Amino acid sequence: MELKDCFPFWERLTAAERSELEAAALVRGVEAGVPLHTGSADCDGLIAVMDGQIRAFILSPEGRELTLHRLVPGDICLFSATCAVPGLRFDVSVEAEKNSLLWVLPPAACKRLVARSLVFANFIGEVAASHLSDILWLVEQVLWKSFDARLAEFLLEESELEGTGKLKITHEKIAAHLGTAREVVTRMLRYFQDEGMVRLSRGCIELLAPDKMARLTAKK
Amino acid sequence: MELKDCFPFWERLTAAERSELEAAALVRGVEAGVPLHTGSADCDGLIAVMDGQIRAFILSPEGRELTLHRLVPGDICLFSATCAVPGLRFDVSVEAEKNSLLWVLPPAACKRLVARSLVFANFIGEVAASHLSDILWLVEQVLWKSFDARLAEFLLEESELEGTGKLKITHEKIAAHLGTAREVVTRMLRYFQDEGMVRLSRGCIELLAPDKMARLTAKK
Repeated sequence: MELKDCFPFWERLTAAERSELEAAALVRGVEAGVPLHTGSADCDGLIAVMDGQIRAFILSPEGRELTLHRLVPGDICLFSATCAVPGLRFDVSVEAEKNSLLWVLPPAACKRLVARSLVFANFIGEVAASHLSDILWLVEQVLWKSFDARLAEFLLEESELEGTGKLKITHEKIAAHLGTAREVVTRMLRYFQDEGMVRLSRGCIELLAPDKMARLTAKK
Repeated sequence: MELKDCFPFWERLTAAERSELEAAALVRGVEAGVPLHTGSADCDGLIAVMDGQIRAFILSPEGRELTLHRLVPGDICLFSATCAVPGLRFDVSVEAEKNSLLWVLPPAACKRLVARSLVFANFIGEVAASHLSDILWLVEQVLWKSFDARLAEFLLEESELEGTGKLKITHEKIAAHLGTAREVVTRMLRYFQDEGMVRLSRGCIELLAPDKMARLTAKK
């Protein structure tokens, strides 16, 4: 995946802007589990995912996590570029979920392009607005959707991301994604198993009735 | 409050852009309690508050509300301009909390300026990023802060907005701001009263110990 595949506006940049973007962008490989960005203290710049998978999450004072976004190839993450995006001030952590290959556009270049290129500025605005929409959706989920629906939705999404109905993921990890405790996840998964929706075995959750789970997610 | 006072980037616009903004912007007066915008079905354009106070909120399927933003003179609201801001897709309602006077920049003009003016595009990106930061803060509040701290914070903010320690606000309204039920608010207010932090009387909450309440909000 080339740089231009990550930036949908590539064709609309001037030749000079393309050169600047190409000269500034760095390729970075990260292993699964490695933190890429830890809150607003540092500023790593804009991240575009070439290969693999990363996630952005927030962390409570007690260390509880909640996943904000999961980014797959072609996705752009703004949360690692707090310093380069005026108006953005928030501690969001970013880590690799799988071994990943990223394009990183350092803060200085990012700032320069935002200030000079209308196309780039519009793109950043669009990514910010899109992140905003996603987070609003998340607020609704957390606030108003029951946990069974959120868990079903997460398992279906995970199954789609992995391209399999047999998920290798711990209850602990699911809890970190959904901002809850492991026990809560385990209890609900046992209920799902009793209902014939999943089969649980050591380190694996097998989805048996995705259609039934999808109906659950539609429920409020 | 003139148009240029609402748009901090005014000085950096070209003469043509200023004329376009001035020609397109409409003044609109709204009475307290009047809905300004009801979700993504309609698109009213960008709203800048000249006078009064408005709020943006989301609504659960059961009609429960949660306030996202409260906007005072000089503030800009993007949520009423879903169609004019690419990447923004979300049902947010906006209503006047007080009798208000607004600048409204209709969607077509908003779109045109975003597409043509770098200064304007940067500003929209900044407002989106700033909204995003606010909502992330709210997610943390809802998810991880105990309700006593959230209520104390709301009362202190309300007191500051109104410039008085005697708040004329119903428990029902507070519940709508904080995304909870009236009973929950009433119960907590009684606890605050027992602790000597407030005095409750018909339709009025008097703050007696703002310092004690401030300490409560600092607590996680």
